[in-house]
Amino acid sequence: MECTRLTLCDIGNTSFDFYKDGKKEKIFVADYELKEGDEKIFYICVNEKIATSLKNFPNWINLQDFIELTNYYETMGIDRIMGCEAVQNGVIIDAGSAMTVDIVKDGVFCGGYIALGLHVSHLAYTQISPRLDYSYNFEIDLDKMPKNSRDALTYGQLGLLYRDVVSHSLPIYLTGGDAPKLKSIFKDAILDEALLFKGMKNIMKKANLC
Amino acid sequence: MECTRLTLCDIGNTSFDFYKDGKKEKIFVADYELKEGDEKIFYICVNEKIATSLKNFPNWINLQDFIELTNYYETMGIDRIMGCEAVQNGVIIDAGSAMTVDIVKDGVFCGGYIALGLHVSHLAYTQISPRLDYSYNFEIDLDKMPKNSRDALTYGQLGLLYRDVVSHSLPIYLTGGDAPKLKSIFKDAILDEALLFKGMKNIMKKANLC
Repeated sequence: MECTRLTLCDIGNTSFDFYKDGKKEKIFVADYELKEGDEKIFYICVNEKIATSLKNFPNWINLQDFIELTNYYETMGIDRIMGCEAVQNGVIIDAGSAMTVDIVKDGVFCGGYIALGLHVSHLAYTQISPRLDYSYNFEIDLDKMPKNSRDALTYGQLGLLYRDVVSHSLPIYLTGGDAPKLKSIFKDAILDEALLFKGMKNIMKKANLC
Repeated sequence: MECTRLTLCDIGNTSFDFYKDGKKEKIFVADYELKEGDEKIFYICVNEKIATSLKNFPNWINLQDFIELTNYYETMGIDRIMGCEAVQNGVIIDAGSAMTVDIVKDGVFCGGYIALGLHVSHLAYTQISPRLDYSYNFEIDLDKMPKNSRDALTYGQLGLLYRDVVSHSLPIYLTGGDAPKLKSIFKDAILDEALLFKGMKNIMKKANLC
């Protein structure tokens, strides 16, 4: 069957994100009941409890079993691996509760890192002092060192990230819930909210699953 | 009177840090009782409640009143300003609950930023997921992109900071409670736990207070 006709699912800690025929559908974990069925669903899952349950449902196929893990490292999140599988050359920023950044050159993972997501880092500032309760300035000019508090905090998170990411001189891919916000910082980046699903499809093609 | 013979005090949210004759003494806010006295104490204070109380004690002299604030910006912390006043050319990292980074060239503040301190950022990772509960690796090789979880988190905080700080090609000064830990990352940095007091003395000399 053609890959696009198949149902894919990216399972996180809070939701099942389905993808079929180019369309995404999010169902929160609390609202989704696993049922027996015939339709094959190809998934990745970072939620350990759900991963255990899914072993009882043979129509749910874990794409983790089809990855050449030697290219990656043991504790690397499966979502990061799928981002890397989607790209031949690039820096992949997945802006969720964490902000993961991975480098791929000629189809090979070259390392990456995990910064804090926008929401979590903002909360952390407010925990230091209520005087650090500023929203990030996505219109900041990162060519100048900041001379006001809001920009000083923005630079301390997004400026440092920006300077590292652009230093790799590779195409930049943005995905994850906060990707649209980051687009105004990474103006030349490719915004692709289905990037992980592209990686999943590439794995399925390599494994002759479609 | 010579500056070194005078008593200086840096008042934070949790402690009074005294400095006299080259020695520091820390007294926690809860353990310190303000009393009338004759000895002049030259202080800076970020604790608003204490700042208000101190107005009733004429022997406590607020150095904030002697700063040319036009060189800085209105909401900039007085502790950051004192770090800048201590240095003619350099990047000043004050590693406390927040990690402030300020640039001074030819004695002039050129901007700066506020990242998260080590403790707060570590806590923030654990709030995202218990799987991100790694201590930072201060022996990390920052010339390589990480390929393990502990280094991925370390790079996401300290690697990004390092790459920005060294890009300014200026001497690096480290101060604040976590400065000794950062010394293994910033190997060529000047570790100076009395840097803010040096800035205070410079202000006092300019103002003919000593």
